[in-house]
Amino acid sequence: MTQSQLRKLLEEVRTGSLDVDLALEQMRHLPFEDLGYAKLDHHRALRHGLTEVILAKGKTPDQVKGIAARLLDKSPNLLVTRADCETAAAVKEIAAETEKEIAAEAEYFPLSGAVRVWRERKMHGKGLISVVSAGTSDIPVAEEARVTCEVMGNEAVEIFDVGVAGIHRLIASSEKLLEARVIVVCAGMEGALASAVGGLVSVPVIAVPTSVGYGASFHGLAALLGMLNSCASNVTVVNIDNGFGAGYVASLINRL
Amino acid sequence: MTQSQLRKLLEEVRTGSLDVDLALEQMRHLPFEDLGYAKLDHHRALRHGLTEVILAKGKTPDQVKGIAARLLDKSPNLLVTRADCETAAAVKEIAAETEKEIAAEAEYFPLSGAVRVWRERKMHGKGLISVVSAGTSDIPVAEEARVTCEVMGNEAVEIFDVGVAGIHRLIASSEKLLEARVIVVCAGMEGALASAVGGLVSVPVIAVPTSVGYGASFHGLAALLGMLNSCASNVTVVNIDNGFGAGYVASLINRL
Amino acid sequence: MTQSQLRKLLEEVRTGSLDVDLALEQMRHLPFEDLGYAKLDHHRALRHGLTEVILAKGKTPDQVKGIAARLLDKSPNLLVTRADCETAAAVKEIAAETEKEIAAEAEYFPLSGAVRVWRERKMHGKGLISVVSAGTSDIPVAEEARVTCEVMGNEAVEIFDVGVAGIHRLIASSEKLLEARVIVVCAGMEGALASAVGGLVSVPVIAVPTSVGYGASFHGLAALLGMLNSCASNVTVVNIDNGFGAGYVASLINRL
Amino acid sequence: MTQSQLRKLLEEVRTGSLDVDLALEQMRHLPFEDLGYAKLDHHRALRHGLTEVILAKGKTPDQVKGIAARLLDKSPNLLVTRADCETAAAVKEIAAETEKEIAAEAEYFPLSGAVRVWRERKMHGKGLISVVSAGTSDIPVAEEARVTCEVMGNEAVEIFDVGVAGIHRLIASSEKLLEARVIVVCAGMEGALASAVGGLVSVPVIAVPTSVGYGASFHGLAALLGMLNSCASNVTVVNIDNGFGAGYVASLINRL
Amino acid sequence: MTQSQLRKLLEEVRTGSLDVDLALEQMRHLPFEDLGYAKLDHHRALRHGLTEVILAKGKTPDQVKGIAARLLDKSPNLLVTRADCETAAAVKEIAAETEKEIAAEAEYFPLSGAVRVWRERKMHGKGLISVVSAGTSDIPVAEEARVTCEVMGNEAVEIFDVGVAGIHRLIASSEKLLEARVIVVCAGMEGALASAVGGLVSVPVIAVPTSVGYGASFHGLAALLGMLNSCASNVTVVNIDNGFGAGYVASLINRL
Amino acid sequence: MTQSQLRKLLEEVRTGSLDVDLALEQMRHLPFEDLGYAKLDHHRALRHGLTEVILAKGKTPDQVKGIAARLLDKSPNLLVTRADCETAAAVKEIAAETEKEIAAEAEYFPLSGAVRVWRERKMHGKGLISVVSAGTSDIPVAEEARVTCEVMGNEAVEIFDVGVAGIHRLIASSEKLLEARVIVVCAGMEGALASAVGGLVSVPVIAVPTSVGYGASFHGLAALLGMLNSCASNVTVVNIDNGFGAGYVASLINRL
Amino acid sequence: MTQSQLRKLLEEVRTGSLDVDLALEQMRHLPFEDLGYAKLDHHRALRHGLTEVILAKGKTPDQVKGIAARLLDKSPNLLVTRADCETAAAVKEIAAETEKEIAAEAEYFPLSGAVRVWRERKMHGKGLISVVSAGTSDIPVAEEARVTCEVMGNEAVEIFDVGVAGIHRLIASSEKLLEARVIVVCAGMEGALASAVGGLVSVPVIAVPTSVGYGASFHGLAALLGMLNSCASNVTVVNIDNGFGAGYVASLINRL
Amino acid sequence: MTQSQLRKLLEEVRTGSLDVDLALEQMRHLPFEDLGYAKLDHHRALRHGLTEVILAKGKTPDQVKGIAARLLDKSPNLLVTRADCETAAAVKEIAAETEKEIAAEAEYFPLSGAVRVWRERKMHGKGLISVVSAGTSDIPVAEEARVTCEVMGNEAVEIFDVGVAGIHRLIASSEKLLEARVIVVCAGMEGALASAVGGLVSVPVIAVPTSVGYGASFHGLAALLGMLNSCASNVTVVNIDNGFGAGYVASLINRL
Repeated sequence: MTQSQLRKLLEEVRTGSLDVDLALEQMRHLPFEDLGYAKLDHHRALRHGLTEVILAKGKTPDQVKGIAARLLDKSPNLLVTRADCETAAAVKEIAAETEKEIAAEAEYFPLSGAVRVWRERKMHGKGLISVVSAGTSDIPVAEEARVTCEVMGNEAVEIFDVGVAGIHRLIASSEKLLEARVIVVCAGMEGALASAVGGLVSVPVIAVPTSVGYGASFHGLAALLGMLNSCASNVTVVNIDNGFGAGYVASLINRL
Repeated sequence: MTQSQLRKLLEEVRTGSLDVDLALEQMRHLPFEDLGYAKLDHHRALRHGLTEVILAKGKTPDQVKGIAARLLDKSPNLLVTRADCETAAAVKEIAAETEKEIAAEAEYFPLSGAVRVWRERKMHGKGLISVVSAGTSDIPVAEEARVTCEVMGNEAVEIFDVGVAGIHRLIASSEKLLEARVIVVCAGMEGALASAVGGLVSVPVIAVPTSVGYGASFHGLAALLGMLNSCASNVTVVNIDNGFGAGYVASLINRL
Repeated sequence: MTQSQLRKLLEEVRTGSLDVDLALEQMRHLPFEDLGYAKLDHHRALRHGLTEVILAKGKTPDQVKGIAARLLDKSPNLLVTRADCETAAAVKEIAAETEKEIAAEAEYFPLSGAVRVWRERKMHGKGLISVVSAGTSDIPVAEEARVTCEVMGNEAVEIFDVGVAGIHRLIASSEKLLEARVIVVCAGMEGALASAVGGLVSVPVIAVPTSVGYGASFHGLAALLGMLNSCASNVTVVNIDNGFGAGYVASLINRL
Repeated sequence: MTQSQLRKLLEEVRTGSLDVDLALEQMRHLPFEDLGYAKLDHHRALRHGLTEVILAKGKTPDQVKGIAARLLDKSPNLLVTRADCETAAAVKEIAAETEKEIAAEAEYFPLSGAVRVWRERKMHGKGLISVVSAGTSDIPVAEEARVTCEVMGNEAVEIFDVGVAGIHRLIASSEKLLEARVIVVCAGMEGALASAVGGLVSVPVIAVPTSVGYGASFHGLAALLGMLNSCASNVTVVNIDNGFGAGYVASLINRL
Repeated sequence: MTQSQLRKLLEEVRTGSLDVDLALEQMRHLPFEDLGYAKLDHHRALRHGLTEVILAKGKTPDQVKGIAARLLDKSPNLLVTRADCETAAAVKEIAAETEKEIAAEAEYFPLSGAVRVWRERKMHGKGLISVVSAGTSDIPVAEEARVTCEVMGNEAVEIFDVGVAGIHRLIASSEKLLEARVIVVCAGMEGALASAVGGLVSVPVIAVPTSVGYGASFHGLAALLGMLNSCASNVTVVNIDNGFGAGYVASLINRL
Repeated sequence: MTQSQLRKLLEEVRTGSLDVDLALEQMRHLPFEDLGYAKLDHHRALRHGLTEVILAKGKTPDQVKGIAARLLDKSPNLLVTRADCETAAAVKEIAAETEKEIAAEAEYFPLSGAVRVWRERKMHGKGLISVVSAGTSDIPVAEEARVTCEVMGNEAVEIFDVGVAGIHRLIASSEKLLEARVIVVCAGMEGALASAVGGLVSVPVIAVPTSVGYGASFHGLAALLGMLNSCASNVTVVNIDNGFGAGYVASLINRL
Repeated sequence: MTQSQLRKLLEEVRTGSLDVDLALEQMRHLPFEDLGYAKLDHHRALRHGLTEVILAKGKTPDQVKGIAARLLDKSPNLLVTRADCETAAAVKEIAAETEKEIAAEAEYFPLSGAVRVWRERKMHGKGLISVVSAGTSDIPVAEEARVTCEVMGNEAVEIFDVGVAGIHRLIASSEKLLEARVIVVCAGMEGALASAVGGLVSVPVIAVPTSVGYGASFHGLAALLGMLNSCASNVTVVNIDNGFGAGYVASLINRL
Repeated sequence: MTQSQLRKLLEEVRTGSLDVDLALEQMRHLPFEDLGYAKLDHHRALRHGLTEVILAKGKTPDQVKGIAARLLDKSPNLLVTRADCETAAAVKEIAAETEKEIAAEAEYFPLSGAVRVWRERKMHGKGLISVVSAGTSDIPVAEEARVTCEVMGNEAVEIFDVGVAGIHRLIASSEKLLEARVIVVCAGMEGALASAVGGLVSVPVIAVPTSVGYGASFHGLAALLGMLNSCASNVTVVNIDNGFGAGYVASLINRL
């Protein structure tokens, strides 16, 4: 129930076309989300350019396809993460069916498993988001972050292979880093890159521990703990391999 | 070596009052931080209103006092975190000695152990930062976050006792939450408040797991894992009990 | 040895048809489970409508089939959990062979791997059991819980996709939740739904952490710890992914 | 805003004494908790005989005293858990001040740190709750559970020292166990008692792992994991040392 | 170098047929294991009836075959553990080639992966070893233990499916348990059977946690911790799934 | 109810002096532990020379004193472990009061906290038990093991400071080790001594990980894991710092 | 910017052919890595005989091939670790293409997955490096270490199967161990070999925990903790299964 | 038994002054450590300048004093680590008593708890050892490392406060770092300094994780895991807070 529907109901009460008891009954059963402030929630995505997202992991291709169809009905853009080939194909198919005035094929990014429907490409971010990755193996996570930033309406740039053990490479990138308004750092193994980048810049740094490594990396735990204990005060952390989450928060920050 | 010193050196080379070899020698030994882009780093705090901070834990009162004296020489404001009474007294003493044109006593916040010298109270933040805490026992961490936000030049408000098990209390605070530009959530036990708040708002939420709890909370581990796995996409996480870090990043975001 | 058998033995001693020594010998060797109070155990399932259950995981299809045959001999209903296709087929076959007066094919639920023989459908539960799940990926665990509740003689309803990050969806379901006499909550990732549901109702809530998630969910550990630390006092917890256990206890509570 | 207040508002709209816009405004700002179904929450404790509870751990004696005063204003009964002597004295004092028609001094249970104000002693539970503990060192946790059950309106009995390594002691208590409608089991070390008790009875068993033990008990982790993996299907688990939680849920079950 | 060889050397020195320097040289280079007390080690297996054992896991079939050939040269019996089909076939082949006066084919136990060459069946144990398992899924581990006991020269009996949740089944087996001189208990999930059996008997109990279970069993960790914290004082523990180790130590104890 | 009492009851039934119904009633209520085979349990300690033991940790001095009084009534010997000074004094006092024909003061071992009442010093063990410790800091645990072995009726010898990093010291002790019938090894840090000793001897080795160490010893976890993974097949493990348990099992083995 | 370029710039300033402002601008943008001391870094590998290394794990064969091509352009030697067959073939191919004056085919070591291009075989190490492994299953890790040592210009020898449980085998190898200048120890399970070897020698020992084992070895964690807690003071540790890292550091030490 | 003693024995056999049987007997009982190669071990410390060390933690002041007395008898130098004031005083006292030709008082370093008797100050190391620490709180561990290096005969220098978050400070120290022959890095929190230093230099880096930090540093675990996963190949790791171990290995390397 939108505010205008609520207004309509009150008008009907006022004019006597609706009985008070019936009005009460209708209000009692109206879903919570139709009240004024909750409405924000429902239409939030569209109004704010916050793209709808589906995490494909743990869902069947059919389930993802079904949800995608529903979302693409209302929304020009869509991001599906962690999709395998079969799921990606299903999303591409449904995207082709719901094709609207703005033509744009669904793109599949096989490294990260992201599928992106990106019809409305309005910029919402006010500056640049840099996505930095420590090594070649961290690229899939960085890709998920960059793809997310872009579909959320941001200019994003990836900076590769600037691990802490070769500080000169990091320093060499420092001007590029200093241009960014928000930075996402993806690193596995010891995850030290977050601290090093954090120390070079004055903007918020969102650290993504990756599961890259072996042995005592314990599938990303070492990087996660390292980043949580960062001696750089401008670092916050998201879940292991959660490139999407980092890109999402970076986008929220960048539109402030 | 500042840029003007470097200019002076080049001028001396140009006029012949300095030999090229000697100039090279001087440049070779000049500390890295005096080069152009690193200079940013040195004066960053002052220019950006980023208050200098000392983590008192693990340092003797004398060590903290010494560092505080050095910092207060250059900076009107100072934040000391995790200070016991003795350290707080030492900081108050040194603050009184370095008292400048703007008179302001050092304040001690015994719940969190923060000591704040807050002489220059210029606002740098563009909006409101809300610091939400789940229970009475989380207040010390929330206090550290709020004190940090304030000394960094932000308007900050604390919202207490809005745990997930009483959702109506959270909903009742939703308008206040919707006013904020950035939100800090402090919660121990299962740490679910971060997800619930994250779902209500569209702004970045910085989650601070606290060590509040017992048994299987494992000193904040349960809350930490919960927050890292938050189903709300706008949540990032800092270290357990790290109210300072959350306040610091919130401040950086709020000045964007 | 039932009480009547014991009475018979004593009668024989009384009448002299049984020697005291022989009586002692017989009593010495009688299996413990034949004593009065232990008998409860043996016939407990049938008398109480507590369906016999086989955990198929770790057993060969033949082993499951053999146990199922033995149990279906005495019991009209049977639940097999975590069965793969082959095991499910074996159970269906044996169920067809032991078909009794009440005809009912064994049903296979491939999401959860449950196989149910449900011939006697007497209601034992006094009210409704609600099985709530946080996301699409938690449905298999919720299904196992619901199937268990039903075969144990309860009316059970599933409520899907009411995660904490969209509190309005939870609130919208609150009336349905308030109708339940016992509630099972299945949630992975941070598992916060248990606390949120617990705070809305006054009845016992049985929380099932699921292994849904990635990275720092550590295969359900994050949800498990979150639920154990729930700030809602009416929450108890079962093992990760143990939909059966939750359904079983909910059934026991619902028949009180 | 109660339903009658909402009706009054609608009546005013109907009669024209309230403008639609003003009505909308009022409805927009009405706190959520005043809506019909949320009201349940507010008065739930009193109406259901669910005693209010304060966890003293992590709060100052003054904070506990303040909260206790507010709660005792509305409620005849109160339970404070994990209180030290000083906090207990503060609660006793406030209880004496708020003494009502039904005189009852606050009792302090030093083993568990519980403080109980128990003026209204109406029975809400329909049967007996047995609280079983494995060893002498588990008694404080068992005491917290029993005190909770009692103040929530239940008859509760403690059965001590029936550890699994002396099964005959457990068997000897089996008739007492079979009388209970709900059972709470408190055990540290390997926590095996929950399974053994669970196997003897057909009623819900709430297992409380205790931190009793040393070395590889890891402060209750061994017992916690043991109980979560119980091969008895009627066992659910609460947090380590959480006697209160177990007693609370047992009370909820016992009033069904 | 055996003692007799050493004696021979000294005799040669005495008679002058060996130079002191040459003697020193020979002694200096003689491998440590040839000294008197180390000899025990070398011939220990044969003299003591301690069968040689190969852990096949982590070795190629060829490596296992090679080691088996070398061992079967000196020893009538051999145990290979954790062998897959291919490795088992290789061992059978080599056993057939080295067939000696006592004909005995190598047996393969596919549940546990044990391969046994058992030509010399002399009894070394003085009593009965009982191998108890909690559930059907624990049988592979129990089998490894029993096969080990037998090939080490012991009478061993398996007792199945006597989990703690059905104590009457355990009690019913108590006479059989009381006959044993040493007991091996194999149990997964909460591993409580070790404590229950330990409490019933006065002999050493060797507990083998198994990886049977799911979720919070953490691949046997729950059972392992449970057994290490057993409240029965006669329980010692071996590695998760280490049926061989338990059988080996039980055999050593039984020959005392 | 002993077997003779049961016989008497049956005789009364036979002679008609006892009604069948009354007999049934008496049998129904007789505590389980009075049945034939359970009786073993009750008098086991005395008959087998298995000294009664009280773990003082987690009990008040008064509780320990009370239990000690009860046990000393029936038993000449008593072992109290983990007692502080106050508890030790209480035990000494009660031991003095219950002083019997065989005079023996209670001894207190302050390193380990053991208190021993050792009046009947009959040897039950057939050979020597060696208690080996890796370093000076492991001595308290070794002392607990030795004191336990002695009071259980064994000759026990301690071998100190034979850590793995100085293998020659271990080799030098090898003859002493080879004399033992059972060996207890106490080691912290990496716990490697158990494997090294296990490799030198052919008898059962009971390994006690100690909490000696710092950092990544994680309070004994490193030693525990090391011992559980021992490459020596004759090693079993007890809980961290559980010198008593090791001594107890060693005693059981030594009397076989 | 090299020092000579910097000199040239200063000369131009001196002669007036370059304006001070332009000089400042050029210096401001010169990449850090071109300054004198950082240049060391760039050519370090070649000058020091430190072979370039690619970790193939987590990279596609094409990525590895591309990096290998670039490195082989400048460097005669190359080590690729953790390569599967396909990647190994790709490296062999590129090595054949870049074949230089010194002919040397790329070798593939399938146990460890190492691929080595070893054209320039100059010795850089001053002594022998011994690579010791505890069991047959540890050989792949030991191989990676040895191959690394060799390609880095060292004489390296492998000593197999000298586990702690057979100390005599270790002692028998002690002379060979005493010849080494640095020792690498590879061991899984309890990892005790590092301490034992450390105790025998006076040179640095680099311990590599391997993931060999099962159950409570937790994929190498037990060995890792054991080695970190080694009572031998000359032991340092690298990551689980990190044979390369151990070989690399051993090589650095051996060239000192 | 030295080689010359063995020669003497053989000579006596040769001349007939010693019976073969007696010779055998003597050889059988000669302690292993008296054989040629093991002797190295005994006098190793003195000959190699490897100072004897006592870990005071877990020992009483009297025990430490006793061991110190024994060691100072043979050795001019001694290091005691982790000593409290009382133990330090005891060592000072015994050092004064055993004062030799070279007068040198025992020094106490209260930050780290090290006590050093340093009479013979011969240099054994060939170059400089740099001990780098990340923050003020890491200084005690760095001190232990430096004191160890010095007493082992090395020139050692400490470089303070060069954490990764301020890379310019690290770069500024790079020349000093490049002078070192071995480097010890002490860092808590995320421990990233080891990787950063490792990337700057070509010499072996020994990383000491410190327990500095809070929350998710888990008492040094985060730093430990970070260092084990270092992307710099020249890093090896010792136990948490093990400054001594790092200094010891650095000393061994530096004398190569």
